[in-house]
Amino acid sequence: MPIGVIHSPFKEPSGVPIQAAVAEETKGTVEVFPEFADGLKDVEGFSHIILLYHFHLAGKALQVRPYMDDQLRGVFATRAPSRPNPIGMSVVRLVRVEGERLHIQDVDVVDGTPLLDIKPYVPEFDVREATSIGWLKKRVDRLRKTRDDGRFSE
Amino acid sequence: MPIGVIHSPFKEPSGVPIQAAVAEETKGTVEVFPEFADGLKDVEGFSHIILLYHFHLAGKALQVRPYMDDQLRGVFATRAPSRPNPIGMSVVRLVRVEGERLHIQDVDVVDGTPLLDIKPYVPEFDVREATSIGWLKKRVDRLRKTRDDGRFSE
Repeated sequence: MPIGVIHSPFKEPSGVPIQAAVAEETKGTVEVFPEFADGLKDVEGFSHIILLYHFHLAGKALQVRPYMDDQLRGVFATRAPSRPNPIGMSVVRLVRVEGERLHIQDVDVVDGTPLLDIKPYVPEFDVREATSIGWLKKRVDRLRKTRDDGRFSE
Repeated sequence: MPIGVIHSPFKEPSGVPIQAAVAEETKGTVEVFPEFADGLKDVEGFSHIILLYHFHLAGKALQVRPYMDDQLRGVFATRAPSRPNPIGMSVVRLVRVEGERLHIQDVDVVDGTPLLDIKPYVPEFDVREATSIGWLKKRVDRLRKTRDDGRFSE
């Protein structure tokens, strides 16, 4: 059950940055439905928030060819949207809270994406020193120049 | 729809570490249901994975008294389990993959928690330099000594 909607400049999946980390400050807004507005108290103090949302345009698959690779990978080893439970996750910058509207930066989702949850991003909770990133090790240098090409949309 | 179950030494919410980051290497396993096993290809290469799961024992609230505070906070400014969409998120260490069973460390969930998704943890995607963490700034030093006291369970 959506608690709101994410608005972005991207009207379709093609061309969307594949991660918020490389969304180059793209601006967007999060519109929280009025019945959930009380939950926004104290959100303003955080510089970054985690958005959980519904990959509402994606199909479902157990193996996928991810954006930065040409081999079939298990979907749980990728961040591809075509997942058994199509839940997306983005860490975005929180610029300003205006009532039930959050102004954000670093948006990497399609306009109209249904919002499921907002969590504060807290480095003490969320940062790990990863010692290996699997198949991505040889591919992650493609991150900045790769964009969604529509391959996961139905 | 769960894709598996998380097993941990914690038989009830009381006493569970409140974040995976301070779960002190507590061991657990993730059991992925056989019909989703094909999605686990290539997961083994990652040192850390993100688990999304159902806070199946929590109530729902828009404002909560979080573990590390005594004031009412908007739930979206907290990581409390009592959320409109009760989706939990933990970054855990992946120790070993044994068929459909993932051996993990740093578990901060109750035994039997329904698993919704597994994503690889990738610092290039997931790490941000947060410049403010709101109300948590004065509270986060309590993190390591705070445990779940059952306040969010029904």
